[in-house]
Amino acid sequence: MAESGRLPDPQSPLFARLNSSLDFDRRLWPQDIEGSRAHLEALHGAGVLDDSEREQLLGVLEAVAGELERGEFDFRDADEDIHMAVERRLTEIAGPVGGKLHTGRSRNDQVATDLVLYARDHLLEADRLLEALMVRLADTAEAHLDWALPGYTHLQRAQPVYLSHHLLAYFWMLDRDRRRFAAALAGLEIPLGAGALAGVNYPLDRAQTARELAGDRELAPSRNSLDAVSSRDFVLDYLGAASICATHLSRFGAEIVLWSTQEFGFCEVADAFSSGSSIMPQKKNPDAAELLRAKALRIVARFGGFAGVLHALPLAYSKDLQEDKEALFDAVDTLELCLEASEEMLAGLRFDRARMAAAAADEFPAATDVADLLVREALKRGVGLSQLSRDDLARHSGLLGDGYYELFEPGATLESKRTLGATSLGRVREQLSEARSVLRRS
Amino acid sequence: MAESGRLPDPQSPLFARLNSSLDFDRRLWPQDIEGSRAHLEALHGAGVLDDSEREQLLGVLEAVAGELERGEFDFRDADEDIHMAVERRLTEIAGPVGGKLHTGRSRNDQVATDLVLYARDHLLEADRLLEALMVRLADTAEAHLDWALPGYTHLQRAQPVYLSHHLLAYFWMLDRDRRRFAAALAGLEIPLGAGALAGVNYPLDRAQTARELAGDRELAPSRNSLDAVSSRDFVLDYLGAASICATHLSRFGAEIVLWSTQEFGFCEVADAFSSGSSIMPQKKNPDAAELLRAKALRIVARFGGFAGVLHALPLAYSKDLQEDKEALFDAVDTLELCLEASEEMLAGLRFDRARMAAAAADEFPAATDVADLLVREALKRGVGLSQLSRDDLARHSGLLGDGYYELFEPGATLESKRTLGATSLGRVREQLSEARSVLRRS
Amino acid sequence: MAESGRLPDPQSPLFARLNSSLDFDRRLWPQDIEGSRAHLEALHGAGVLDDSEREQLLGVLEAVAGELERGEFDFRDADEDIHMAVERRLTEIAGPVGGKLHTGRSRNDQVATDLVLYARDHLLEADRLLEALMVRLADTAEAHLDWALPGYTHLQRAQPVYLSHHLLAYFWMLDRDRRRFAAALAGLEIPLGAGALAGVNYPLDRAQTARELAGDRELAPSRNSLDAVSSRDFVLDYLGAASICATHLSRFGAEIVLWSTQEFGFCEVADAFSSGSSIMPQKKNPDAAELLRAKALRIVARFGGFAGVLHALPLAYSKDLQEDKEALFDAVDTLELCLEASEEMLAGLRFDRARMAAAAADEFPAATDVADLLVREALKRGVGLSQLSRDDLARHSGLLGDGYYELFEPGATLESKRTLGATSLGRVREQLSEARSVLRRS
Amino acid sequence: MAESGRLPDPQSPLFARLNSSLDFDRRLWPQDIEGSRAHLEALHGAGVLDDSEREQLLGVLEAVAGELERGEFDFRDADEDIHMAVERRLTEIAGPVGGKLHTGRSRNDQVATDLVLYARDHLLEADRLLEALMVRLADTAEAHLDWALPGYTHLQRAQPVYLSHHLLAYFWMLDRDRRRFAAALAGLEIPLGAGALAGVNYPLDRAQTARELAGDRELAPSRNSLDAVSSRDFVLDYLGAASICATHLSRFGAEIVLWSTQEFGFCEVADAFSSGSSIMPQKKNPDAAELLRAKALRIVARFGGFAGVLHALPLAYSKDLQEDKEALFDAVDTLELCLEASEEMLAGLRFDRARMAAAAADEFPAATDVADLLVREALKRGVGLSQLSRDDLARHSGLLGDGYYELFEPGATLESKRTLGATSLGRVREQLSEARSVLRRS
Repeated sequence: MAESGRLPDPQSPLFARLNSSLDFDRRLWPQDIEGSRAHLEALHGAGVLDDSEREQLLGVLEAVAGELERGEFDFRDADEDIHMAVERRLTEIAGPVGGKLHTGRSRNDQVATDLVLYARDHLLEADRLLEALMVRLADTAEAHLDWALPGYTHLQRAQPVYLSHHLLAYFWMLDRDRRRFAAALAGLEIPLGAGALAGVNYPLDRAQTARELAGDRELAPSRNSLDAVSSRDFVLDYLGAASICATHLSRFGAEIVLWSTQEFGFCEVADAFSSGSSIMPQKKNPDAAELLRAKALRIVARFGGFAGVLHALPLAYSKDLQEDKEALFDAVDTLELCLEASEEMLAGLRFDRARMAAAAADEFPAATDVADLLVREALKRGVGLSQLSRDDLARHSGLLGDGYYELFEPGATLESKRTLGATSLGRVREQLSEARSVLRRS
Repeated sequence: MAESGRLPDPQSPLFARLNSSLDFDRRLWPQDIEGSRAHLEALHGAGVLDDSEREQLLGVLEAVAGELERGEFDFRDADEDIHMAVERRLTEIAGPVGGKLHTGRSRNDQVATDLVLYARDHLLEADRLLEALMVRLADTAEAHLDWALPGYTHLQRAQPVYLSHHLLAYFWMLDRDRRRFAAALAGLEIPLGAGALAGVNYPLDRAQTARELAGDRELAPSRNSLDAVSSRDFVLDYLGAASICATHLSRFGAEIVLWSTQEFGFCEVADAFSSGSSIMPQKKNPDAAELLRAKALRIVARFGGFAGVLHALPLAYSKDLQEDKEALFDAVDTLELCLEASEEMLAGLRFDRARMAAAAADEFPAATDVADLLVREALKRGVGLSQLSRDDLARHSGLLGDGYYELFEPGATLESKRTLGATSLGRVREQLSEARSVLRRS
Repeated sequence: MAESGRLPDPQSPLFARLNSSLDFDRRLWPQDIEGSRAHLEALHGAGVLDDSEREQLLGVLEAVAGELERGEFDFRDADEDIHMAVERRLTEIAGPVGGKLHTGRSRNDQVATDLVLYARDHLLEADRLLEALMVRLADTAEAHLDWALPGYTHLQRAQPVYLSHHLLAYFWMLDRDRRRFAAALAGLEIPLGAGALAGVNYPLDRAQTARELAGDRELAPSRNSLDAVSSRDFVLDYLGAASICATHLSRFGAEIVLWSTQEFGFCEVADAFSSGSSIMPQKKNPDAAELLRAKALRIVARFGGFAGVLHALPLAYSKDLQEDKEALFDAVDTLELCLEASEEMLAGLRFDRARMAAAAADEFPAATDVADLLVREALKRGVGLSQLSRDDLARHSGLLGDGYYELFEPGATLESKRTLGATSLGRVREQLSEARSVLRRS
Repeated sequence: MAESGRLPDPQSPLFARLNSSLDFDRRLWPQDIEGSRAHLEALHGAGVLDDSEREQLLGVLEAVAGELERGEFDFRDADEDIHMAVERRLTEIAGPVGGKLHTGRSRNDQVATDLVLYARDHLLEADRLLEALMVRLADTAEAHLDWALPGYTHLQRAQPVYLSHHLLAYFWMLDRDRRRFAAALAGLEIPLGAGALAGVNYPLDRAQTARELAGDRELAPSRNSLDAVSSRDFVLDYLGAASICATHLSRFGAEIVLWSTQEFGFCEVADAFSSGSSIMPQKKNPDAAELLRAKALRIVARFGGFAGVLHALPLAYSKDLQEDKEALFDAVDTLELCLEASEEMLAGLRFDRARMAAAAADEFPAATDVADLLVREALKRGVGLSQLSRDDLARHSGLLGDGYYELFEPGATLESKRTLGATSLGRVREQLSEARSVLRRS
């Protein structure tokens, strides 16, 4: 942790470049202010700050926050990170009493706390964006309730499904993602009060601090000071949930790219989410869908890269942990943009009912159901399929006659699928209704 | 999914090698039997099987399971996977009625279900092994409650801590891991009844099937048939939780390796967990700890590798998904072995109290507390540290006299750390008591 | 390295499971025999073995190799790895003189050497398989020289190309892969003679040993004994080259999957490389192509996972390095199978000329060329396109008349592409001829 | 590729954020100018530009480059990427003739070319930085030629080595890295002239263009236009080489961290490369070494993440490829900074000869040599070690007397290691001399 190094020789400029994190951690300022405010209250509670000092420092923190918010904050070359910058400015304004804020706090628990708060904010943001996308999926499913298209296995047409059913498959993937982000949120612990690694000498009420930082949720203080400054599990939790979520969006993007081809022709991305080509004016490229497809690996790599940093790392704080921020920030930026773009792109997507229906009308998939019919009959008679004689088959023509042509009527295959979660309209309606109720609960 | 391909030309032997999964998926036989049993009940409930057929097939399944358990099952070259092998054998024994078991089930929902059941079993096993290791950590912490050693930041001695405190840091990491595995378990969904992708034509009671497969927990049926056969989120959930857990074990292993060096000399691994060297007989190598350190990346890579397989993959089932099994199996084998080995290795670890105490007695860390003392005084007087004149310092000698030497008494620094989760004995006892209560709850 | 541990207490069975590598390293026996043979010659050269001892030990090595080759080798529980097993057996047969083979050699340089030899063999095998696949690509290109299909950008039809041209794109990717494997081969260094880490006490001629193990190539002895036993760069070199190569095969597999859809219909995989479906008999699934697509990430993950093991690892040998073998073996098995399967699958692929031609005949791509024509004219006249008046356009109708309709004649767009490496027939013939000459050089 | 999309509806701001690459690709401006200059010459050679147009456009390119270099270039919101920005500005200055530069070039081959040129520049830069670090390693080795320290296996002291020998181990790792970067450089191919995917309609001399862009090296034009715009192998080549190189630096950093501990005490990082702690003034943290240790995984993850993007990606250009830039740029920035920092940090490192010598003087490692002495004698007499009677041992006491105590003389073990590449002084001098000669050749 950068702690205003007091070494005799000046830093090498090269080392400063390697070591400084201000370029990327300045976005943590709101969390740094919030964490400092909570620490200030804790110091007040512990009798380190009296009422007027508390009042004064709260005011100065507010002022610094204002400068940062308005973009008027004057960063200096010697500010190695956002925490040092804020502290430096605070002392400039408040005078010596500003230094009191560093009492009972180390850069180690401060930085970890700020990042926990950042994670808290973006776990909530992921939830919000997921909900919006799920609403859009449910709405789009409802608007295309009975539009048939082929379901594929091995990318070969297999059995027809309704587009609503297909879209709702993503709904449930995202619903699981929300539960992942929620679990990560519930697991957050507040390191503040852990000091450099061993706890601090002041009677800070860490539980109270955690409550303040939790808002209306429950956040616990971390229960072991070494663990508090050494662990970045919460970063991995975000990255892991984001990786899986991004994988879902990647599959969604891949399908849009595929469905937008001239060959499939199932849908068309809105102009607002496509690029054209100056030399090939007939082209309309589903760039956004391609990027959704591509981005998953980037987030997955962030998980692997940062987990790798933790590999073989002794306790407690080591500088290696500074790699946490860029990994988390990049994943947050990427995922949030992808979620938003997915929602808006989906909103503008136009599906081609006729093209999908034509593809779904392929009669071969119904063969499954013909086979099923024969199997049922054979089993009823207690013979193997191969044991059916020509005479048997002739006799069965009646049976086939009953059901055979019906199988090829529009929707017949679709409507025959009637288990819970199946593609028949009744089941999709039921699913949609459950989806709506899931959304209402959130 | 391998579904007894009925194509006119024979398979290429090369394709068979690429395609066959029997070598690695045969371990799924208990789950395949269990899933088939549940499906059989569902078929009976749906009226597809009458009572005597049910009775007969249950018996045959039992017999096949017995052959597999006793290692007497006769695998054939044409058995592409364990599911085909079991089904083939079932029909051999039961005759044509055996084929009925395939009614209303596709290889797609069958395989997904089997793997969900496997995940269920090993999420529970991870929990069990974590608990055992946590008990060992708590016991070892209790047995070394007041053994001081240096706490490090940047691998430089920073502040002394108790060994109990250090060991409990791992306790809480693992406690979070348990919550991760528990969340993965709670998120499992049973695909059975989803058919190939669209649901099936029989009135199977999927909720009832899910209840049967859940044992005493609650497992839901998957709510969308396309999602059910396309998603392998539960594999990623296991791999993600296992990655983070393995990272904790990696850090633990790295510390044991470090502490076992002649230079640190804090502990010695039991012979039973070390290797010697024929040409360097004085050596005792902490091989097990090194392997704990190394294995994390292997599991992390499995997460990345399999998430990568899902990248850009259209719905529903594609053969690519077959990569799920080796990824999951390798992670399961690796993690379970590492958890067991950690527990047993820790049980045999001998700590060197004197070496640790000598290192912790390094007086420099106490400087933090001296600094703290001065800061408090300066703040009390409302002056900056630099504003203290020589006279001031002379006057303060009394103050310093009160507290200065006490700071260097054994344990003084340690005992001054008194926030929740800090290293003072009282706080560690509190922590240990909470740890015990966490274990009792499980 | 497992060196017949001589520690007083017995190993824990759990430790033995964690530590033993015999299950996976037994495939190294031919390299272990070869390395021992070379070491034996070096000992003879250094005067440690006399002529008759050399003769005797060579004979015993031969005998042990024979047992291993015939599957008659009797492995024991105490054999922790293949090296220990071979040595144990050698001493059983040869008596005490067998122990001499361990003179001037440590398990550390021995194991590293064996794995280098294994890498050597499989770098050569990759080269051989790549060549075979490249021959097949060139042959297939030649057989479909002037079959037009659309070239895609963003998976939208962009400009027509010849199938030969498309297939040759893969030829050049694989040609680069061969150069990667060749560079890895040229970089191999023989660790034998580096001892445990510091070199050995005997005047072994390491350069001579390296020559013997190089066959007809040039392999250098490693130049630093610490580096020799600590580095596994050659494993990363294989994994890196294999990752890139597998990525190429993944793209190839993905295109076959896409082209095999009913929607594209450009090709059909041979039955021998497909699976059918019992319940969907109309289906023919391109399983092999899907697996080619999927496997890349598995190898890439091996690179990342093993590079991660090396992260933060102090010199010289640590047990962590044992992770090298499974990573390398799995990548070798996977890549070699994928290369072979690609070649054979491609051999059986049937392309549908009519479907491809119909897709390529889409007239829109020619718009590029129309635009080009206009631009040329405008530039010739020194005006912007927007500056062309209606009169100008009328005057230009003659010009357009010259070229406009020609643009839409079959092949016109294709044949207009005439830069080096372009898709016009002449250029493709030139390319094919260069491809053939590349193959002749190998 | 962003090609001034001409779609009727305006872009969504969200899409613009997702799609725009100007924020990160603006650093490509020198390569874009260079590529445009080469293309301009090719157009002139093909008769598309006359002499005065060539002259004029070269001048305008120069002017635009000047604006960019001086930071005076006025970027606009509509500039989606650096290529569009440069082209837009060029046309502003040059008028309609500026548009001619787009003749015979597509964004696809342009962007790929620019990135190849960027890779070329940074492959050369990596080489330069590696050389500087190797010089520093050789110099430092020379300055500490006969300083003994323990060599470790399993992080246990094993055999003493000279510090020079230890440092040179890294020399050879980096030497291999240089060869990797050199191979990547030799494999570069110039895509310019490949057009959108199929080649272009103008008689551009691609070989001549490639020669111009190669400087004094040999760069070939890519031989297949589809391959040219679809492949990013050169990015993976850089990332792969950088990953391995960073792994070497990670091990180096890890050793510095370890050696800087109070427990090892082998070296001290210069103040200029350390941070202190305000609350623990005695601390001096080896931050730079920690960051070297940490960064490897970040680069490795970039390899995996971008290889993953290529997984399953059909030819030719897809927007997914835009992920190439941030991956490459981040790896370049990280690696170059790490190489520079390594060199400078090493320059300031102070080794503690006494601490190292004391650790190396541990007598146990000599046991290896005692064992060796006994084995030699036993073998000479043709008996096993266990067959030596007490009388034998008594008789051998003379022998032992001859060599036994010598083994423990300072340097005796070290000097006994005399194979090529061993740690004895003569061998290290030989190694150093070869190192110098390797550097001279570069």
